Amino acid sequence: MLLEQIQQPDDLKRLAFEQLEPLAAEIRQFLVEKLSVTGGHLAPNLGVVELTLALHYLFDSPRDKFIFDVGHQSYVHKILTGRMNQFDTLRKYKGLCGFVKRSESEHDVWEAGHSSTSLSAAMGMAVSRDLQGKSNRVIAMIGDGALTGGMALEALNHIGHERRKLMVVLNDNEMSIAPNVGALSNYLARIRSDRHYVKAKEEVEQLLKKIPAIGGTLAKTVERLKDSFKYLVVPGVWFEELGFTYFGPVDGHNLSLLMETLKQADKVNGPVVVHVITLKGKGYSPAEADSHKWHGISPYKIESGQVLKPVGPPMYTEVFGSTLIELAAQDKRVVAITPAMPGGSGLLGFAKAYPERMFDVGIAEQHAATFSAGLASEGLKPVFAVYSTFLQRAYDQVVHDICRANLNVTFAIDRAGFVGPDGETHQGVYDIAYLRSIPNMVVMMPKDENELRHMMKTALDYEDGPIAYRYPRINGLGVPLDEQLTAIPIGTWETLRHGQDAAILAVGPMIPIALEAAETLAKEGVQVRVVNARFIKPMDEAMLNQLAKEDIPVLTLEEGAVMGGFGSGVLEYYSLHNHYGMRVKTIGVPDYFVEHGSVGQQREEVGLTAERLVSELTALVPRKRQRA
Amino acid sequence: MLLEQIQQPDDLKRLAFEQLEPLAAEIRQFLVEKLSVTGGHLAPNLGVVELTLALHYLFDSPRDKFIFDVGHQSYVHKILTGRMNQFDTLRKYKGLCGFVKRSESEHDVWEAGHSSTSLSAAMGMAVSRDLQGKSNRVIAMIGDGALTGGMALEALNHIGHERRKLMVVLNDNEMSIAPNVGALSNYLARIRSDRHYVKAKEEVEQLLKKIPAIGGTLAKTVERLKDSFKYLVVPGVWFEELGFTYFGPVDGHNLSLLMETLKQADKVNGPVVVHVITLKGKGYSPAEADSHKWHGISPYKIESGQVLKPVGPPMYTEVFGSTLIELAAQDKRVVAITPAMPGGSGLLGFAKAYPERMFDVGIAEQHAATFSAGLASEGLKPVFAVYSTFLQRAYDQVVHDICRANLNVTFAIDRAGFVGPDGETHQGVYDIAYLRSIPNMVVMMPKDENELRHMMKTALDYEDGPIAYRYPRINGLGVPLDEQLTAIPIGTWETLRHGQDAAILAVGPMIPIALEAAETLAKEGVQVRVVNARFIKPMDEAMLNQLAKEDIPVLTLEEGAVMGGFGSGVLEYYSLHNHYGMRVKTIGVPDYFVEHGSVGQQREEVGLTAERLVSELTALVPRKRQRA
Repeated sequence: MLLEQIQQPDDLKRLAFEQLEPLAAEIRQFLVEKLSVTGGHLAPNLGVVELTLALHYLFDSPRDKFIFDVGHQSYVHKILTGRMNQFDTLRKYKGLCGFVKRSESEHDVWEAGHSSTSLSAAMGMAVSRDLQGKSNRVIAMIGDGALTGGMALEALNHIGHERRKLMVVLNDNEMSIAPNVGALSNYLARIRSDRHYVKAKEEVEQLLKKIPAIGGTLAKTVERLKDSFKYLVVPGVWFEELGFTYFGPVDGHNLSLLMETLKQADKVNGPVVVHVITLKGKGYSPAEADSHKWHGISPYKIESGQVLKPVGPPMYTEVFGSTLIELAAQDKRVVAITPAMPGGSGLLGFAKAYPERMFDVGIAEQHAATFSAGLASEGLKPVFAVYSTFLQRAYDQVVHDICRANLNVTFAIDRAGFVGPDGETHQGVYDIAYLRSIPNMVVMMPKDENELRHMMKTALDYEDGPIAYRYPRINGLGVPLDEQLTAIPIGTWETLRHGQDAAILAVGPMIPIALEAAETLAKEGVQVRVVNARFIKPMDEAMLNQLAKEDIPVLTLEEGAVMGGFGSGVLEYYSLHNHYGMRVKTIGVPDYFVEHGSVGQQREEVGLTAERLVSELTALVPRKRQRA
Repeated sequence: MLLEQIQQPDDLKRLAFEQLEPLAAEIRQFLVEKLSVTGGHLAPNLGVVELTLALHYLFDSPRDKFIFDVGHQSYVHKILTGRMNQFDTLRKYKGLCGFVKRSESEHDVWEAGHSSTSLSAAMGMAVSRDLQGKSNRVIAMIGDGALTGGMALEALNHIGHERRKLMVVLNDNEMSIAPNVGALSNYLARIRSDRHYVKAKEEVEQLLKKIPAIGGTLAKTVERLKDSFKYLVVPGVWFEELGFTYFGPVDGHNLSLLMETLKQADKVNGPVVVHVITLKGKGYSPAEADSHKWHGISPYKIESGQVLKPVGPPMYTEVFGSTLIELAAQDKRVVAITPAMPGGSGLLGFAKAYPERMFDVGIAEQHAATFSAGLASEGLKPVFAVYSTFLQRAYDQVVHDICRANLNVTFAIDRAGFVGPDGETHQGVYDIAYLRSIPNMVVMMPKDENELRHMMKTALDYEDGPIAYRYPRINGLGVPLDEQLTAIPIGTWETLRHGQDAAILAVGPMIPIALEAAETLAKEGVQVRVVNARFIKPMDEAMLNQLAKEDIPVLTLEEGAVMGGFGSGVLEYYSLHNHYGMRVKTIGVPDYFVEHGSVGQQREEVGLTAERLVSELTALVPRKRQRA
């Protein structure tokens, strides 16, 4: 095995060029085998095997800075930089991170889980290099999908303007996670399909010689015509106009062509784009056949490609998707918006049922939000389906374009709370805090998948401004689904269990944990009330007042940042209404970034457990009440 | 006066074309006169007089949707839609808004104060039109500066892909607020300067005829060459590649040319860009000569162009700017980043002193933040100078790229708190809430301009992650400035006034109000402690504990959203540490969007006044303590 000889990039450089192709095959086999057990981002990594080999073979990491956009395509990089033996722990608690991670290796110079950041980071590193008189390379990789993200375009604009030496490797696999949409993507497709572009160069030069010598004003035009040949022979005019030198398109699986192009590009003393065409899933036929499905995959059988998914109740995401189809049938105003996540958001069924009412806008959360505002301003009922962590990209649009104008935009916030193996870059634990302080916002979270359906109806019926329902990246509880959907009165909570000694105000998937703690304490004679705090904003003031009147100690419980979260809202309410004596304890995610693992492990780590609640409640309930 | 005949767009349409030019002159005179008294965005509006006239003359608002980007260039639109008589109240409390405002007129269909939103909104309105079977026009205006904002590029990508009928009027005045930077801007400049583009068309056709007839493979090349003529004769290839039909560039002050072009563009059944060249400040020579200065202007003398600025202590912004130069002299790692606000952020002096360490990245807050992260990751000390309201655009980058990676980025957050006449779109009242819940973040606010200087030194010395100092859009207190700068220990507060009956924990410019209230109550025998809560995060836990130990009622005071704000942090702290009996009252900005007016009026409206404090404190202090 060649692979076993590679502990660091220098080992790779010692190989003969001819050995790289067999090495690539070994890497593919390694990935297919390892990920069949752990799961992970298989297809993207199979697509960049040769590209990663070429970069490490030609250039000099960590002196040269390799910047991966998103970073889920960094597995090959990890293999080549001494982490091959850690792949059994991939995306597991305390194990190898599924993204680039600075703490793992000096070769990991930039970490990200959100897309479209690599060009900005690269520009920062290029400026640092120049100001500090260094001479290292800065090489940013970015996918064709990520290129549509606004900040990538902002970065292109700045890089093209400053003209510092910087290499952008455009990894064009004709789709990001879902098939790409967008004009830029169409443009790249035209480049790819029109191989004449490249062939034409010689022919044009021939032609040029045949144009008769002309004087006068026409001479100038001929000069201009010559200048304009780049438009003919260089397909990357869009990039050239922004100040980049464009190379490509080049087959990303042809190692010699790839290396030749990278070497040429490296000679340019300014910003370059190297346009590399790769095949997602390359070398493993199930992944080649459906690279969308194999983008991020659960464990599977290698021979058949059969994915081993545990059976369980439907995911919240699925219930959202099917319910939206029902609502759309009832109300023609319903339209759905996704920033490049039609599958992940459960909208494939909707897209099939209502193609003209489905808008995948590409990786473009800001536009998605304000586009939704525009739709709402003219009377439609847009449902913006977005992961909690990605909604962060549209925070200003939520404040300035939607809440300030008080438009009827519905936010379907998926993956709220801990997200498991994607880890710290993807945790959906800030949206309660960042949404709650925005005026006009209504925020809900259901206790189960059936209540999610009623919340969706609630949002549809609500005509007084923006409204959000958030739901976790887990299976539902398997409860029966009501056929008839009924709007829930805004700002009302639900008492699930009675008790006079203390009350837990619990949000969403924290409710089963609250009930479990209450059961435990009941055995000790302490009766704990459990409330489904289904409206995070506005809160149920009648219920809050009642608790104050009865002088019941309160514990708030949420799978979100405890700083500024739902619990703070309860504290604020009692302060505002002069209930200074209230015993209120807020439990949530503490003030640090929680890394990858299972959702259960993440909850355990931060103490979102029934055991913790029992102990907190025991401390909270005044002794006189502890009758046991 | 023609102007007096115009109460609505229909009145305009009744005028003969020949009357429009005199009308334009009247409008300019009106603007110059009115704004000499009120102040306002003079130069941008002088630039779009003919453009706004042409749109209202040719098209049919409000049936056709006119969408202004930013909206500070909507004065002419306001004049033509019945609001001429309200200009005496421009940007004043309860007066005419300085931006587009839906509640003012049915002709105001989209409101914004932040840039780059118009294309997304227009796309939403175009889709709504199509789905509802309507046939109105959708016309978005956007400046060349705003076009570099990521979300505008995201929108272009979506619009170009869907190919719905939609007109983008690119108002190119060769600068937005500051002279534009960026590759896209260079590209537009090439179009503008190279008038040959337009002239060349005929010449090229002549040339084409002179190419001898050729067979074989060359024939195809000639065909391709013909196709490529659009690259030669159409300057807007960048837009064309994105799916737009491009018209222009056209002189935006030539009414007949402008109207002819708009009519042609209107015939296209798909997305078009009409590239209009305008002169900011057109028709008023002081504004033409320095359109940057005259972008937003205080009252002035019409004849001389002398601006009537009240004399007072230096603005916080100015102290920031001069201090940054001092720090840069001491430490070569200091670099400054601004998203198109070098003047507004007080960085013109820095740019002059350290041009190679100054980075104006254009309207691109997301890129600015992550570019700063890249700079910090390689050992520089970037200072990202940004208004509080615009930092909202970079919320995800702050969370994901800076705080998660714990990079040494300094945030200089200007215009924190109420901003006065810019009003609800620009209020800097959310940053405390949205920054406080992000792990690793340190947030400070100074009591005066001298303390700002020490905070800047504190930030420079701090090497443990991101740190922010925020300061208001007002004059400093006029205190002496220390020459020697000393870092303030992280997380420490300062007691400014002693007292045992209650304590006010006050942030930044709220401190004088707190001291005033304390003085008032002292006359009644109530002694109020006043604390400069200069660290919003982390808080001074020793001082919080001491207050609990002494059982002193606490009032928190901040010019920021009370939901999730600094006061909530204090509530959280006491809950976390089981100090349930503490009387804590949080005072801040209530949960609605506060409109334009003076800062004083805005504070008065929400009760950030000494009188309010006296009454709150009187209620807060237990009777036994009120010894008066």
